[in-house]
Amino acid sequence: MAGNSIGQLFRVTTFGESHGIAIGGVIDGCPPGLALHESDMQGDLDRRKPGTSRYTTARREGDEVQILSGVFEGVTTGTSIGLVIQNTDQRSQDYSKIADRFRPGHADYTYQQKYGTRDYRGGGRSSARETAIRVAAGAIAKKYLKQEFGIEIVGYLSQLGPISMALEAPDSINDNPFFCPEPGKLEALDAYMRDLKKSGDSVGAQVSVYATNVPVGLGEPVFDRLDADIAHAMMGINAVKGVEIGDGFGVIEQLGSEHRDTLTPDGFETNHSGGVLGGISTGQPITVNMALKPTSSISVPGKTITVEGKETDIVTKGRHDPCVGIRAVPIAEAMLAIVLMDHCLRHRAQNAQVQSPTPTIPGQVGQS
Amino acid sequence: MAGNSIGQLFRVTTFGESHGIAIGGVIDGCPPGLALHESDMQGDLDRRKPGTSRYTTARREGDEVQILSGVFEGVTTGTSIGLVIQNTDQRSQDYSKIADRFRPGHADYTYQQKYGTRDYRGGGRSSARETAIRVAAGAIAKKYLKQEFGIEIVGYLSQLGPISMALEAPDSINDNPFFCPEPGKLEALDAYMRDLKKSGDSVGAQVSVYATNVPVGLGEPVFDRLDADIAHAMMGINAVKGVEIGDGFGVIEQLGSEHRDTLTPDGFETNHSGGVLGGISTGQPITVNMALKPTSSISVPGKTITVEGKETDIVTKGRHDPCVGIRAVPIAEAMLAIVLMDHCLRHRAQNAQVQSPTPTIPGQVGQS
Amino acid sequence: MAGNSIGQLFRVTTFGESHGIAIGGVIDGCPPGLALHESDMQGDLDRRKPGTSRYTTARREGDEVQILSGVFEGVTTGTSIGLVIQNTDQRSQDYSKIADRFRPGHADYTYQQKYGTRDYRGGGRSSARETAIRVAAGAIAKKYLKQEFGIEIVGYLSQLGPISMALEAPDSINDNPFFCPEPGKLEALDAYMRDLKKSGDSVGAQVSVYATNVPVGLGEPVFDRLDADIAHAMMGINAVKGVEIGDGFGVIEQLGSEHRDTLTPDGFETNHSGGVLGGISTGQPITVNMALKPTSSISVPGKTITVEGKETDIVTKGRHDPCVGIRAVPIAEAMLAIVLMDHCLRHRAQNAQVQSPTPTIPGQVGQS
Amino acid sequence: MAGNSIGQLFRVTTFGESHGIAIGGVIDGCPPGLALHESDMQGDLDRRKPGTSRYTTARREGDEVQILSGVFEGVTTGTSIGLVIQNTDQRSQDYSKIADRFRPGHADYTYQQKYGTRDYRGGGRSSARETAIRVAAGAIAKKYLKQEFGIEIVGYLSQLGPISMALEAPDSINDNPFFCPEPGKLEALDAYMRDLKKSGDSVGAQVSVYATNVPVGLGEPVFDRLDADIAHAMMGINAVKGVEIGDGFGVIEQLGSEHRDTLTPDGFETNHSGGVLGGISTGQPITVNMALKPTSSISVPGKTITVEGKETDIVTKGRHDPCVGIRAVPIAEAMLAIVLMDHCLRHRAQNAQVQSPTPTIPGQVGQS
Repeated sequence: MAGNSIGQLFRVTTFGESHGIAIGGVIDGCPPGLALHESDMQGDLDRRKPGTSRYTTARREGDEVQILSGVFEGVTTGTSIGLVIQNTDQRSQDYSKIADRFRPGHADYTYQQKYGTRDYRGGGRSSARETAIRVAAGAIAKKYLKQEFGIEIVGYLSQLGPISMALEAPDSINDNPFFCPEPGKLEALDAYMRDLKKSGDSVGAQVSVYATNVPVGLGEPVFDRLDADIAHAMMGINAVKGVEIGDGFGVIEQLGSEHRDTLTPDGFETNHSGGVLGGISTGQPITVNMALKPTSSISVPGKTITVEGKETDIVTKGRHDPCVGIRAVPIAEAMLAIVLMDHCLRHRAQNAQVQSPTPTIPGQVGQS
Repeated sequence: MAGNSIGQLFRVTTFGESHGIAIGGVIDGCPPGLALHESDMQGDLDRRKPGTSRYTTARREGDEVQILSGVFEGVTTGTSIGLVIQNTDQRSQDYSKIADRFRPGHADYTYQQKYGTRDYRGGGRSSARETAIRVAAGAIAKKYLKQEFGIEIVGYLSQLGPISMALEAPDSINDNPFFCPEPGKLEALDAYMRDLKKSGDSVGAQVSVYATNVPVGLGEPVFDRLDADIAHAMMGINAVKGVEIGDGFGVIEQLGSEHRDTLTPDGFETNHSGGVLGGISTGQPITVNMALKPTSSISVPGKTITVEGKETDIVTKGRHDPCVGIRAVPIAEAMLAIVLMDHCLRHRAQNAQVQSPTPTIPGQVGQS
Repeated sequence: MAGNSIGQLFRVTTFGESHGIAIGGVIDGCPPGLALHESDMQGDLDRRKPGTSRYTTARREGDEVQILSGVFEGVTTGTSIGLVIQNTDQRSQDYSKIADRFRPGHADYTYQQKYGTRDYRGGGRSSARETAIRVAAGAIAKKYLKQEFGIEIVGYLSQLGPISMALEAPDSINDNPFFCPEPGKLEALDAYMRDLKKSGDSVGAQVSVYATNVPVGLGEPVFDRLDADIAHAMMGINAVKGVEIGDGFGVIEQLGSEHRDTLTPDGFETNHSGGVLGGISTGQPITVNMALKPTSSISVPGKTITVEGKETDIVTKGRHDPCVGIRAVPIAEAMLAIVLMDHCLRHRAQNAQVQSPTPTIPGQVGQS
Repeated sequence: MAGNSIGQLFRVTTFGESHGIAIGGVIDGCPPGLALHESDMQGDLDRRKPGTSRYTTARREGDEVQILSGVFEGVTTGTSIGLVIQNTDQRSQDYSKIADRFRPGHADYTYQQKYGTRDYRGGGRSSARETAIRVAAGAIAKKYLKQEFGIEIVGYLSQLGPISMALEAPDSINDNPFFCPEPGKLEALDAYMRDLKKSGDSVGAQVSVYATNVPVGLGEPVFDRLDADIAHAMMGINAVKGVEIGDGFGVIEQLGSEHRDTLTPDGFETNHSGGVLGGISTGQPITVNMALKPTSSISVPGKTITVEGKETDIVTKGRHDPCVGIRAVPIAEAMLAIVLMDHCLRHRAQNAQVQSPTPTIPGQVGQS
């Protein structure tokens, strides 16, 4: 039952299917007094939207968001913000062939089993199309976080299949269609993707996201910990199968004497913790990695079963991303923004002086 | 503010500090009619409790749980279950030296910054001592899940520092102090831990947990997804820095043609997904890995700052686990049980026929 | 912060202002498989909508609801249902005069103080226009409750100013513009309302609502009691200042020997309790009364202060209901339906056999 | 399922049955830095506890609350506060006769039907004994509200059966066993209660509670309105059948020109609204009335049915309050405190300047 909301004080509720009339949502709990216009969201929506490069699906959606409420004379009023994006390029005919069978790796089977029915057009509710509203909501959170606390949130592609990328040039991330932070890898990425498209296959990816200028003290242990809520939000992004904070799985082989971040009068010497200790932000950058599986919609033929349980073949002919990880970058940013926004409001309820972040001495995000 | 509850229909709320009078909690939403006695929880509490082997802290706690309410004539009544465990071996004097300084890697600094005060005795609320109540709650969930649905939950240590272990002998997991599923590694583990203790250092670990006989259809997309809620619960365990479902970070370098689990009339051919597709259980085993950082309480001397921000030295002399990952095994099982319990109840609200799980043809958990 | 949602498993979230582009909402948790079309909601929307009789405001709104998601091939899919109603007859010019002053009895002052700003057009978010979405959500709940459990929900006007009405002819309630259940009072109501309109004043009212065929066992003590949740939902309707269950304030002068409803092998002899004991439904009809204050928008001149705090005059010239209680009848039904729907789902989570209601021997609703 | 918590940021969860080992609860979200000792709660617990006068039940409970966590060195730490009160005077033998039959007017029947079982000893979970923990939680809220905002909360008995009492002498409320605010009525009350006890019957009552110095702006429309949450909390008190805010049911016969509270540069001229407009506090006193039914445990013989549905007789011989309304006074205060506390924290999350209350010119609470 009801599961389409996230957040407690800043709460985002979404609706909409891939090929329905529209997708939309309600942003509840945005403080009053924030200047807000559709254009504040459009930038991130455009970064996520399909059809912008040859590396992503050819589906063309303007993804133009409309604010239906909660803003008066250009400023939020503190009431709930209704958002809607019309679906324009639905092409339902593309999907008629999948009504009777389950695409492996997709949610077709689980939705059908859970609900006894499903909107099979383009994955219906399980399509990543729904994440456009998350991106819009995240843009509102980003604007508030930046303005009120100076928090900045940056996402990038840190690995695509076998090609890993270092955070060398954060300023160049949005200048290329891969959200690649290491310009020297662009050629290899391009070559890899061309070959991949030719093969009709898809590949996994790792997306990283970090936030700087995060106040000390966010997070409500022992269950509503900041890291737990980040893990929840990230694992809730379509295709994500793993989440790390700070050193993540790297800690398994570390010694305590290596891992612990030494505190000095000038700040922390390292940031192995990824900015969270005991579920509460340390004031250092929050660093998060997530693993995204390869999209299951590929033109490599496969086997599956029909709705009646009979064996059959499947070839997905639709317009799909050969690497869904790429477009997940703005989604990851949005989800981190939504979680931080909720926790900033929750922390403020305690009447805490919101405190300046704690410096990390080497000062580098993404390194520990 | 309020953050000490987890779950919606099966809701666990905990209280208590490491060296307070007692720890305890409330289990709300346990269906009526379940035979329940303290002894149903004691087994898992004993698996978690300190002082049982030379590989864990020497603190001795009976960890005897008492049921204060919600059970009448040996059976749950559907009302809230109050639990309490007295703290017996507090030795507060051990901790007096840390009142004025922040132990690096611990939550001392963040609690102090967030709340302006902290119970410094043994980490106070941030101590893993609190997880005893989670284990008790998880034992209730486990009993119900087993009885009502046949669900079984098994946790084990899959890596300790450099030593990785395969799930060779699930039946032997509880026969050794490491929750090691590969008997051939016991000697190496023992040797490694002896050396580690001598060095005064600590090491990270990976814990794995899986559930079998999970009904199809658990999870409430798009935010209260089963995988998202599992990630939330696991990242909320002390010291956890990473969570994977199914192939986890392994998906980054996979191709779509490799990753997708083929459906056949007899079930799934593989379980790369870890039993969750689109946030909903597939009926295959749910498989989860988590990375735990090395405990920060080590006798290797280090530097830190005082509460006043001045540089100082630190040596943690308390009784600590050189690898907190070991005792995290029953905690991970408990958290998975709590999440599954909540989602079984939520799914039932839809009036769904709870459906038999879907076989995975190779039938092996922990392999994909 | 976030406060625009109601319900836990059947959760309704609304947005929209009186004179914004549109109002709308998300219905989350509607079980799959329910045949649903806009026309299922339109009947109740038409009962609530303005401009249908000379006794209500002259504002003309089609109140045509559009389903944006959650329904596929005419049937709910279990995913969130997006609803939107365009605002068509806004006439913002009517309200320009009230931008600089607080209408007494309205929420102008409190919204301005709380948020530091407000959408002053027609009351903005505090306008009862928002309740159209509650009515639409309630219609979905009503349909499900009727189909699945046989529950029927009936509301009526039980008092208008000095004129009280008995539940004599439930079938005639929707045949007159007052939702009056006692046809003999129609003439008096008409005469009273004509005089009231002439005087430019408004008057209070009492609305009653009951549900029959309610299963035994709904309600989750001790806080999420059925009666507590009904009180919450009813007091949350604009202008409501009092709520009663069963005999309500009549119990003050009752003796225990009078009040207690005797149980017999054939059912309860009376229904003083209004169908709830200990916060749980008895299976008898749920009976609720609520008191609605007179609308504060009247043409009788009054005094107030400006936004700057200076004394000024006020005459509300807009198009207003001289008795807001009349149109509150379908809203009260909707809120009761939403609460019962949520509790039916919550009760089902316990895996309870949903049990037939318990007869009340005299069999009469609204009498005790 | 789970329903034993109230509040969002200040969340109270309770457990315990009338004749179990202990009752208790968790207070989550209390801000750090509040000086807190058991004695801060004991005063209100003593006001509620049984056995203090001949007008209440003869059961003797010390009702000594113990703080198990969340307080360190006399000050709250921001972590969850565990509370427990041992049951001492259980006398289970008194109740053995009611195991097989349903006491009319009690929750015996509904608990049995809902859960398929019940703790029949003294009403089990449905007993008002559980409210002791609410009173303890409320005392914490009261202390914080008073210290931080200057809010004062006062409850009193405003009617007992046919005897109504005016708020003449607020200072004398706690000097008499009836919480009577009109000393001239004490003799009549005493006489009435003597006769009532002789007759073996019980009677209903009205309790009133008000809060002064409430900041402007509390409440989160449109569903988490302050008045809606107050109604929820009050209707959730055992035996309450009706709740009013401000003029309550008196508004039915009022004209708009009478009801609207005129705003002047010096404050409101009247307080018909009871301190809430549009679901948000006005800064005037919050005034609430509630109706409590006569206790159903009386020695007047009656009829009922057995658990098997057969007709039988019933005489309740236990130790019971002939008017449960009397002891409900501190409970009503506690619930109002809990709601105000939650809303103060929620409002603060918006980063609102908490604003001084707005004067009511006549300055009198309980008058409009």
